[in-house]
Amino acid sequence: MLVVPALFSQQSPREQVRKLLDDQTAAWNRGDLVGFMHGYDNSSELTFFSGDNIAKGWDATLARYRQRYQGEGKEMGHLSFTDAEIQVLGPSSAVFTARWHLAMTNGKKLEGLTTVICKLTKDGWKIVHDHSS
Amino acid sequence: MLVVPALFSQQSPREQVRKLLDDQTAAWNRGDLVGFMHGYDNSSELTFFSGDNIAKGWDATLARYRQRYQGEGKEMGHLSFTDAEIQVLGPSSAVFTARWHLAMTNGKKLEGLTTVICKLTKDGWKIVHDHSS
Repeated sequence: MLVVPALFSQQSPREQVRKLLDDQTAAWNRGDLVGFMHGYDNSSELTFFSGDNIAKGWDATLARYRQRYQGEGKEMGHLSFTDAEIQVLGPSSAVFTARWHLAMTNGKKLEGLTTVICKLTKDGWKIVHDHSS
Repeated sequence: MLVVPALFSQQSPREQVRKLLDDQTAAWNRGDLVGFMHGYDNSSELTFFSGDNIAKGWDATLARYRQRYQGEGKEMGHLSFTDAEIQVLGPSSAVFTARWHLAMTNGKKLEGLTTVICKLTKDGWKIVHDHSS
């Protein structure tokens, strides 16, 4: 019997994108914002649209998250998605669309819509554009 | 001298996506909502995210635009974009991101952000997902 190491497992683009998003959600839900940010392409070309704001680059995206979800009286909450769909656009690109939900410890619930563009980069599948409203 | 008919002109994906978006904007700005809708994939798979609403399919997308921009006391206004970027993701997919602006005849100005996924379909390049907030 041939034992194939995990290293050689062939995941489809869809499976790899799903893993990227699952890992990101798990990081968020343990309060690990930098781990969550690992899902984004560490590039000055990354774009993050939220509310009326355009953040350009990984550093500006992290700053935007920190401003909104960390510090005095703020929390990250528990993140989940409904209406989630991954559409593979080609061998190296995909789009994830969903309704996001954040449940806060005080019972407050936030929700909105998200469109996330993923690309296969030299560091594996990464988010290159996020539009969350 | 060889005259090459326009039929044989080879436009790049970027040029074809730009033409799709330019044609769509021109249709909007002459008040031609159905002409504008020609830029969307005429499919039940089309998705249109706006505000907190998910419209699924071409008909629901048209209905959403009609509800918002046509009828008693409503107008389409003049559409333009800033921070516009087309990123070609592969030979048959691209993403357009921008800040949209609508100038109304009463001087009111609206603006927001848009992320548009375009695919090369059997009917040429079409929008398959629009997230406008």
